[in-house]
Amino acid sequence: MKTMSLQKYSRPLNQIYQKRLDRFFQHLKVEADHFLGYPCSREFDYSPLYPFLNMPLNNVGDPFIESRYHLNSHEYEREVIAFFSELLQAKENQTWGYVTNGGTEGNMYGIYLARETYPNGLVYHSETTHYSVPKILRMLHARNIMIKSQANGEIDYQDLAETIRIHRDIPAIIFANIGTTMTGAIDNLVKIKQILSDLAISQYYIHCDAALGGMILPFVDNAPAFDFSAGIDSISISGHKMIGSPIPCGLALAKKTHVDRIARAVEYVGTLDSTITGSRNAITPLFLWYAIKTKGKPGFKEICQHCISVADYAIGRFKDIGIEAWRNPYSITVVFPRQTEDVLARWQIATQHDMAHIITMPHVKTHHIDRLINDITDANKQEVA
Amino acid sequence: MKTMSLQKYSRPLNQIYQKRLDRFFQHLKVEADHFLGYPCSREFDYSPLYPFLNMPLNNVGDPFIESRYHLNSHEYEREVIAFFSELLQAKENQTWGYVTNGGTEGNMYGIYLARETYPNGLVYHSETTHYSVPKILRMLHARNIMIKSQANGEIDYQDLAETIRIHRDIPAIIFANIGTTMTGAIDNLVKIKQILSDLAISQYYIHCDAALGGMILPFVDNAPAFDFSAGIDSISISGHKMIGSPIPCGLALAKKTHVDRIARAVEYVGTLDSTITGSRNAITPLFLWYAIKTKGKPGFKEICQHCISVADYAIGRFKDIGIEAWRNPYSITVVFPRQTEDVLARWQIATQHDMAHIITMPHVKTHHIDRLINDITDANKQEVA
Repeated sequence: MKTMSLQKYSRPLNQIYQKRLDRFFQHLKVEADHFLGYPCSREFDYSPLYPFLNMPLNNVGDPFIESRYHLNSHEYEREVIAFFSELLQAKENQTWGYVTNGGTEGNMYGIYLARETYPNGLVYHSETTHYSVPKILRMLHARNIMIKSQANGEIDYQDLAETIRIHRDIPAIIFANIGTTMTGAIDNLVKIKQILSDLAISQYYIHCDAALGGMILPFVDNAPAFDFSAGIDSISISGHKMIGSPIPCGLALAKKTHVDRIARAVEYVGTLDSTITGSRNAITPLFLWYAIKTKGKPGFKEICQHCISVADYAIGRFKDIGIEAWRNPYSITVVFPRQTEDVLARWQIATQHDMAHIITMPHVKTHHIDRLINDITDANKQEVA
Repeated sequence: MKTMSLQKYSRPLNQIYQKRLDRFFQHLKVEADHFLGYPCSREFDYSPLYPFLNMPLNNVGDPFIESRYHLNSHEYEREVIAFFSELLQAKENQTWGYVTNGGTEGNMYGIYLARETYPNGLVYHSETTHYSVPKILRMLHARNIMIKSQANGEIDYQDLAETIRIHRDIPAIIFANIGTTMTGAIDNLVKIKQILSDLAISQYYIHCDAALGGMILPFVDNAPAFDFSAGIDSISISGHKMIGSPIPCGLALAKKTHVDRIARAVEYVGTLDSTITGSRNAITPLFLWYAIKTKGKPGFKEICQHCISVADYAIGRFKDIGIEAWRNPYSITVVFPRQTEDVLARWQIATQHDMAHIITMPHVKTHHIDRLINDITDANKQEVA
């Protein structure tokens, strides 16, 4: 049998489709210049890594165990995990992690570990927790109680304490927000641990959803404790948010003792099946590695400071036009009253009830803020007219 | 405040790291030429789409509902879903789907829908089912029973019938393999439905794991029924396998009635939260769209025929050297007895107990087979010597 190139089964992309793709790209460029409402940076350039996209890469299985699937970037993934482990003050050799497909997978992983640790445990999460968490809890059949939030988005400690008190006989699984979705509020782990201690709850598990905050708090002064030194059991951080990536990704980190409970030897891939997904993205670990190596901690620190100053600049500009905007400490989420649909749509601004926010991610410059403020001023003039 | 480019926070990649990346790429090229054991094609070229990797794309939420996150490729994702819906004979407007991060997510989605449809249902899956499925069942707290498999990897219909008979009072959730991992065996849906009918089971749900087979069966003559015309409720197909992609991806398709049960309006993103992951990869839908538009059904058909002839070529070559190799009908997985560690490692060959396999994916040419056969011959000579 003669071997022929399969290229003959491919034809070039039809010109009509090519033109559609070109128009789509131009459309994205315009939209990307009006991208204020979501916590995703567009300040990245991974083009030196594009050649790797020619390979059927796959990080299947545990990044710390050699796999028979050789086309992987496990080595780089381990270095990304090491960077985050150090950043989050994980004790050496006591923490395990992997690069996920995003925050949801990291949160699912944490809740799964918690549920396996305490099968009858109760998950406590505040009402300002991300909408994906109730979905995960339902998927995992994890018993849970929603706790009230304070006006700033932080969990209501009194409600938490009273609710745990009623269930003192049940292990407590704390789902803490290190930056809520709408207002960037941080649940105070010191206060939460005090509540657990006051109630003499010895069986508990703390998972942190630090999707955005996990890459801000380590780089600002006097930030509240939220990492392994604060006694957490697992954490989820997004990679496509503060670091930036064209593909959603994130980090799941957890104490090794919890992971060992669920890992299961699987001969087929000659590896351990300790992750949620089987076949895993090997490109995003390379992207994250590249960002870490080209920016480093000093770079991330400067970026965070820049984001905070743009947030404060935005608050000032809102004040100039008589709109009260605010942000939580250590947060780059600027909250203000809901605006006209036109403005919300143009600037891709997320809302909840009467509340709107912009998030001054690394790509947001003062000129974006100025243009937003002008648009709001114009829209309000038209409404009055 | 003066806005400065954040590029100043980035430094070029250190030369040592750059050299490491270069070596890594060369290593991958060598390994990619010895890539026979896994069902992932390396026959793709998405370089015309690389410019899109400069954008913070995100297909968050339901692909059929407009999102306020405008940097998405939902339009292209919908066309990919439409292609697969037609291929799998889904009734118009009665099927919903999305592009997943791979087969595991699609299987998790199907089992989740099944469990929500029949909360007390029992999942029946054969012992040759992929190793990720018991993990998913455990995660989702889905009651399940493992059924024996026949020697070729197909489910044992007698064991299935006898087991369901014992649990006739409980809704049956069938997890069917449309190509098992190790031997590419296909569970016969006609026989399975006959069993359900004989036992007068009216409440049942059928999910198909068609990771690889879902892109082969539609393109070979007289293939067994496995799609929506055969009465399935949901299906998972991989995108990085037969189609090929540098990033794991797949399709989850399900009857709309099941999906509506779990979808939940979420104001925050102004979309419906009907997918498992929140933030979703928007690049892989573009890749799949591009593959569909440049290959089309005729291209995929030729590719499948090519793969089957290479599989038969391999069986012939194994026979030449006195090794009995075989494949299931409609399968490109060539099964043979386990070989020396050296050969297994060099050719990245998956094993289970005494069984090994290669999978003649589109990139596997007859010269790869010839080299493998030579290596096996040499290794066996050495063992004898």
